[in-house]
Amino acid sequence: SEGDPVTAAGPDVFSSKNLALQAQKKILSKIASKTVANMLIDDTSSEIFDELYKVTKEHTHNKKEAHKIMKDLIKVAIKIGILYRNNQFNQEEIVIVEKFRKKLNQTAMTIVSFYEVEYTFDRNVLSKLLHECKDLVHELVQRHLTPRTHGRINHVFNHFADVEFLSTLYSLDGDCRPNLKRICEGINTLIDEKVL
Amino acid sequence: SEGDPVTAAGPDVFSSKNLALQAQKKILSKIASKTVANMLIDDTSSEIFDELYKVTKEHTHNKKEAHKIMKDLIKVAIKIGILYRNNQFNQEEIVIVEKFRKKLNQTAMTIVSFYEVEYTFDRNVLSKLLHECKDLVHELVQRHLTPRTHGRINHVFNHFADVEFLSTLYSLDGDCRPNLKRICEGINTLIDEKVL
Repeated sequence: SEGDPVTAAGPDVFSSKNLALQAQKKILSKIASKTVANMLIDDTSSEIFDELYKVTKEHTHNKKEAHKIMKDLIKVAIKIGILYRNNQFNQEEIVIVEKFRKKLNQTAMTIVSFYEVEYTFDRNVLSKLLHECKDLVHELVQRHLTPRTHGRINHVFNHFADVEFLSTLYSLDGDCRPNLKRICEGINTLIDEKVL
Repeated sequence: SEGDPVTAAGPDVFSSKNLALQAQKKILSKIASKTVANMLIDDTSSEIFDELYKVTKEHTHNKKEAHKIMKDLIKVAIKIGILYRNNQFNQEEIVIVEKFRKKLNQTAMTIVSFYEVEYTFDRNVLSKLLHECKDLVHELVQRHLTPRTHGRINHVFNHFADVEFLSTLYSLDGDCRPNLKRICEGINTLIDEKVL
């Protein structure tokens, strides 16, 4: 009832600080849940990643390592997506985003071209493009992410830009031809949809 | 072991989509937790809110209603803080943020002045300033928040801008004088720290 004395153990303990803490947690959790409904990695990209997992397993003969590489790739992609969506990049970094988009687009088109036009595959050209992508990613997230994440970036690109891996992927006599076909179909879709 | 057939029930089921979903949830939850560590409502503001709760209870003689008003105030403040911190306001809205800061500062200084200088209190002047703050808050969050939140904004300001409430708060003969003193001390601290 009204008029109860306000004591530490009494019923009328009001703390703005506690109420604010609870409200903030609740609102942020709601935002996080809502944001998950907007996936940062679209279905076509997921399908490409599934193919990349298969060819990585084929090349490394190591399921665990293949899983680790893909997990690192997905984590890095999502962290960058979240930074971008939450407008965390400053003006200089936005310039790097645009450079990275262009470099990634160039790389993607080269991947498709090397697949579609016989005898054009050049593992050194593709490796160089991928390393340039890697450098831009490092530069982009320099201010935001941990050395651990930079290690993940290296882990991912050191694998996908590896000339031996690229040779396995593009081998006309190897087992990866159907996977490469699906990867390139996915890339073409992303290019058509202006994602890449 | 390697070479296991890939089947729906097999051990080597890899899904980038599922992995991405899990990673996104985990990263967003981590961000939310980290963000909570950076409270959007500082200690001084919390102390002011605690005093506002006490005087609201004194004025309304209704603990439940006082709690509801403060909860609404805290929720609105936090939602605006999150929108601002996550750079969700566009250029036009940033202009309104600056107008609101100035109006809130003017209102805060008027609150202190009316307390410190005897016989200057004018409930209509203060009420008008608070209603102007309310209008700016509505304008600021127009694009972002729900009718329910606009209802909360009205609930909060209709109470604090009420001339009868303000008269209770500033009454020289009433019980709110010590609370008003602490509110003004808090406001002066926020002004000194350039928060207001």
